Amino acid sequence: MGAGLSNDGQIGVASSGKAPRTARGERTLRKILDAARDEIGERGFSDSSIVGITQRAGVALGTFYTYFDSKEALFEALVRDMSAQVRDHVAPALEEAGDVFDGERLALESFLRFAREYRHVYRIIDEAEFVDPAGFRAHYETTAERIAARLIAGRERGEIASSYSHEDLEVLAWALMGANVFLGLRYSVWASADPASVAAATSRALRAGLGK
Amino acid sequence: MGAGLSNDGQIGVASSGKAPRTARGERTLRKILDAARDEIGERGFSDSSIVGITQRAGVALGTFYTYFDSKEALFEALVRDMSAQVRDHVAPALEEAGDVFDGERLALESFLRFAREYRHVYRIIDEAEFVDPAGFRAHYETTAERIAARLIAGRERGEIASSYSHEDLEVLAWALMGANVFLGLRYSVWASADPASVAAATSRALRAGLGK
Repeated sequence: MGAGLSNDGQIGVASSGKAPRTARGERTLRKILDAARDEIGERGFSDSSIVGITQRAGVALGTFYTYFDSKEALFEALVRDMSAQVRDHVAPALEEAGDVFDGERLALESFLRFAREYRHVYRIIDEAEFVDPAGFRAHYETTAERIAARLIAGRERGEIASSYSHEDLEVLAWALMGANVFLGLRYSVWASADPASVAAATSRALRAGLGK
Repeated sequence: MGAGLSNDGQIGVASSGKAPRTARGERTLRKILDAARDEIGERGFSDSSIVGITQRAGVALGTFYTYFDSKEALFEALVRDMSAQVRDHVAPALEEAGDVFDGERLALESFLRFAREYRHVYRIIDEAEFVDPAGFRAHYETTAERIAARLIAGRERGEIASSYSHEDLEVLAWALMGANVFLGLRYSVWASADPASVAAATSRALRAGLGK
């Protein structure tokens, strides 16, 4: 895994054959991705330019092409990077959790804090539906798979009623992800509500709804 | 309310001062909106043209300007129209319901059928985040308000535990709306799953989660 790149080593962030080979290169790539997040998050994809991104990153224009073939390729990398950042931001909360419901509560709370700090993440992931449909779908599919795996593990530990089938829990994982996305939009992007109290309200319903 | 226009009479669909005055005018406006739904749903906003929409609708180009000032104005009208169509499609299901949970189950089932028939609705509402941010936000805010009102009424009828506060139910309304949106994306737009079984899985959890 690259320094702070949050990629899992299986999905390359840079364009094919352009992965950084040194720690310095990884830092430069990180700067470009952070600048792209701010530039595209503020201006949108079509009004953003490679020049604007490299100026913001403080790197030469030619450096951009060391890592990416095009603005589209950068955007695809950015979506994968933001998706991985959300995952990595939420992961520590899950490790502290007492049970599956506690885990989902802490994960939502952590996501709400992330969305409040990086409101641009919404605009970027949402714009991916149009600019990078495969990346958009991959983001939600992998997120839902992770939630479903947590629910299934919770059922195996006896925390979730065994009458919920594997298929039920897959459906519920999509429902839970959608709930989290819209709670983030409402309470972190459009307003700044207390993440703990938003997460507590939904967590209580989830525990009662799925618990034994 | 105009013929089939599904607007509630408070939000004008045509541009200011351009509302149709005859039944024939309303039918023409309906044709333009349906053509815009298909054209913009297929091609996206920026690749759609007024000429393409009027040709699809079978009306003269000048007729467009009888109702709308611009492509942007048409798009804003389309978002309001689709939002109202979703609401009107779901309303009859709610009237048949035995209790609040039954109502939400039937509403989701009805929404999943609507999303399967009009997959474009997702692209149009989602693109509104960029083309018509106020319309995007209004769509979700009014939808969440309707769901919250149903949950609050359910609590007043004694179907939802009184320990859920008004604020809790507002948070849960956003969660439920997000769940429904993502279930529609996953099970109606990306695949065609049985709406009744998708709705049954989430409804069971909702009843157990919020019931007394």
